[in-house]
Amino acid sequence: MEEHEEEFKTWIFTLGNEVVEGRVVNTNASYLGRRLTLLGFKVVGNISLIDDVNIISSHLRYVANTYKPRLIVTTGGLGPTPDDRTLEAIAKAFNRKLILNDEAFKMVKEKYSEINLPMTVERKKMAYLPEGAIPIPNPVGTAPGSWLEVPELNLIIISLPGVPRELEAMWEGWVEKRLRDIGPKVYIFEETFTVIGIPESSAAKVLKDVQKRYGNVYVKTHPKGHEIRGPKLDVYIMASSREESEARKAVRIVKELLMRKFKELGGNIHE
Amino acid sequence: MEEHEEEFKTWIFTLGNEVVEGRVVNTNASYLGRRLTLLGFKVVGNISLIDDVNIISSHLRYVANTYKPRLIVTTGGLGPTPDDRTLEAIAKAFNRKLILNDEAFKMVKEKYSEINLPMTVERKKMAYLPEGAIPIPNPVGTAPGSWLEVPELNLIIISLPGVPRELEAMWEGWVEKRLRDIGPKVYIFEETFTVIGIPESSAAKVLKDVQKRYGNVYVKTHPKGHEIRGPKLDVYIMASSREESEARKAVRIVKELLMRKFKELGGNIHE
Repeated sequence: MEEHEEEFKTWIFTLGNEVVEGRVVNTNASYLGRRLTLLGFKVVGNISLIDDVNIISSHLRYVANTYKPRLIVTTGGLGPTPDDRTLEAIAKAFNRKLILNDEAFKMVKEKYSEINLPMTVERKKMAYLPEGAIPIPNPVGTAPGSWLEVPELNLIIISLPGVPRELEAMWEGWVEKRLRDIGPKVYIFEETFTVIGIPESSAAKVLKDVQKRYGNVYVKTHPKGHEIRGPKLDVYIMASSREESEARKAVRIVKELLMRKFKELGGNIHE
Repeated sequence: MEEHEEEFKTWIFTLGNEVVEGRVVNTNASYLGRRLTLLGFKVVGNISLIDDVNIISSHLRYVANTYKPRLIVTTGGLGPTPDDRTLEAIAKAFNRKLILNDEAFKMVKEKYSEINLPMTVERKKMAYLPEGAIPIPNPVGTAPGSWLEVPELNLIIISLPGVPRELEAMWEGWVEKRLRDIGPKVYIFEETFTVIGIPESSAAKVLKDVQKRYGNVYVKTHPKGHEIRGPKLDVYIMASSREESEARKAVRIVKELLMRKFKELGGNIHE
């Protein structure tokens, strides 16, 4: 495993009954998985849990203690309703107090005063963050996010809302530039092509051989057709490296090798 | 918590680097979450992990020991490629041997003999199941699923492929009818309506009051508009009960109460 994978292991927690019970499709998980991978972070797992403070906090603790991630990103559970308890669970998991954050309270107050709505207990709730957290401005909705560093575990916990356009605005406008500063300096290259006429079980042997020779390149087939009647595979190749030219070269070599081998087996290649 | 929730706690594991790294959107998670919830199973969490036998097996063990689920459903990692190692991880987690299952081997052989493809190590791999498992026929693809009972934990582990149309065919054609036999005898009712003109933070107080009075009914708002400039909420109400009429009645009472309260606050209701 490369050094940056050891250093920047990441877990995503996408929280909420509606996610677990399948009332929504979890596009936040794929959005964050992709963005983090492209930044060079090694995403190891994505965990969706119901809105239960004890389950969330104990699972956070399990992941932090077992896998020693550098980063945990949570989505959901920051809003004004009683079941929005993600920050309470984080505070509990990492022995922080949940306190009224002055800066977050200012952000929330400004949002509601714009439309002359009074401050209520439910609205004020959104300004309670784990002690020591930095609020992340929410340009779309009202609930601020939270950036909490846990120095004793060398861990950063970023909490964002569950509404995709809020999360994405906060990620692209605030979070990602900070992660680029602290994250691995890696270049990532990826390529895909399609091969028709080779069952995945035949492609498997080719992949195994190639993976053995080029351990730093990630190769995966995704079956799109029918294994027996009309096999069609999308082949995905990825490499990341601290040197731009290295990642690009590794992907190119493996792609050419795979295409040649699949052609020899009678496959049709579509790039 | 109702009795059936204690008895039929369920965790879903959706496995594969492509899920964790966001190269695919995890529709298997929402499909299974929805189907299981409607069957009366209480889905507590959904965990996506990279293709790493040690991480998968230790996380399975953690969930089984900590939350004592009745059911675990896994997707992905049953295919012929070297990174398809879900059944190996299950065998490891629950101290079973991974053995060639005669019935599964017959299923795999028949698939390939149909098109005169020889048996290879990679194809035979798909017939290795944890000792004691029942193979689940795959009418769409080649890899059989696995139904493993772990009596010492009162746990059933169902493993299905990651390709959605294979998973869905196996779920609807084989798995679900067996779960109906062993699962809770519950009736589930759900309703939704939309309210325009009330910010979620105002609706939150109403929901809190209603939830307190009707603890057996699940109510959740999903913001669709803009909290400040144009608030629009989808309101979801669900109840499950062993009596059909009870679940229906509980949902109806709560729905009417919520609509009345939202109207009093100046909201427009759309059913």
